[in-house]
Amino acid sequence: MTVTADQIKLLREKTNAGFMDCKKVLIETGGNIDKAIAELRKKGVAVAAKRAGKAAKEGIVESYIHLGGKIGVLLEVNCETDFVAKNEQFQQFVKDVAMQIAAAHPQFLEPGQVPSELIEKEKEIIAAQAGDKPANVIEKMIAGKINKFYSEVCLLEQPFVKDDKIKIKDYLNSIIAKIGENIKIRRFVRYQLGEDL
Amino acid sequence: MTVTADQIKLLREKTNAGFMDCKKVLIETGGNIDKAIAELRKKGVAVAAKRAGKAAKEGIVESYIHLGGKIGVLLEVNCETDFVAKNEQFQQFVKDVAMQIAAAHPQFLEPGQVPSELIEKEKEIIAAQAGDKPANVIEKMIAGKINKFYSEVCLLEQPFVKDDKIKIKDYLNSIIAKIGENIKIRRFVRYQLGEDL
Repeated sequence: MTVTADQIKLLREKTNAGFMDCKKVLIETGGNIDKAIAELRKKGVAVAAKRAGKAAKEGIVESYIHLGGKIGVLLEVNCETDFVAKNEQFQQFVKDVAMQIAAAHPQFLEPGQVPSELIEKEKEIIAAQAGDKPANVIEKMIAGKINKFYSEVCLLEQPFVKDDKIKIKDYLNSIIAKIGENIKIRRFVRYQLGEDL
Repeated sequence: MTVTADQIKLLREKTNAGFMDCKKVLIETGGNIDKAIAELRKKGVAVAAKRAGKAAKEGIVESYIHLGGKIGVLLEVNCETDFVAKNEQFQQFVKDVAMQIAAAHPQFLEPGQVPSELIEKEKEIIAAQAGDKPANVIEKMIAGKINKFYSEVCLLEQPFVKDDKIKIKDYLNSIIAKIGENIKIRRFVRYQLGEDL
């Protein structure tokens, strides 16, 4: 099985994975891009799970100012070593996430941080819209809409603005897999000029 | 009464006021630098009071990253018009305040924002240190130490790191006086890499 440079390029664009990783997984999957993406995701998630217990106290505090001072973002991303904090791919990831926050306005890092009152309120709205549909249908609607809600308000669940085929958590996992250190988006804040507080 | 260029330069350094304002007030005060500073302060405070009711919804969101990503600051400063938001002195003020926050680590904007529990705790510590001194002495000690506490934790009460003879609020008032618009430090946040939350 030979793999073309174009296939590798496409896979790299879609996953942010390294050249050799992409080549290898394309050979394994017989050149099937979708399967290759799934394999790389799995690999990223596996590495991420393995590193999750490691202390991540190093990293970068990064800012991003948009529209000449109308929007500002402050972000802390942690890794395990100062060496990785200076890694170009890590730094590019941090920059991308800062830009993501400016553009896509997430309010929480992940679903676990969304206050339960907010979820209850969303559920009520959905149930009211569903009217007198059967309970199991309403339940499915709620599950779907809550996931959609998470993908709007939670940074890790948002589609990456530079490539909406992956979520930020996929991008994070691909970086963890590539670098081989635990990496955490620790906290962020976004100011919009003159917004109501 | 003639005023020397050196006197004007010194006064400008101490107050951030404009050349003509400094010259005028030095002539009025017979070249007395201390009186001149007091006059400029009063003038600044007077203009600030006059502008205080005006809506300040324009401005800048500014960031400052220190030590290559170990400390980060995000800051919103409001003014009344987009025109002033583009003013060089206004922008320099915003930059200076962002740097101040990075360097001097304020936790609140002004004394009114310090939680009363924190003040009570400080008072208890001071009273305990004072031992069996008379009540009026303890009261004076408390007043003095609370002011010192404010000058450490409140941005507006902190000595300006680039010129510790003035406080940030003096600098703010001098900018308001010079520009003639209501200017407000609206909010700020400071991240230090790996700090306990």
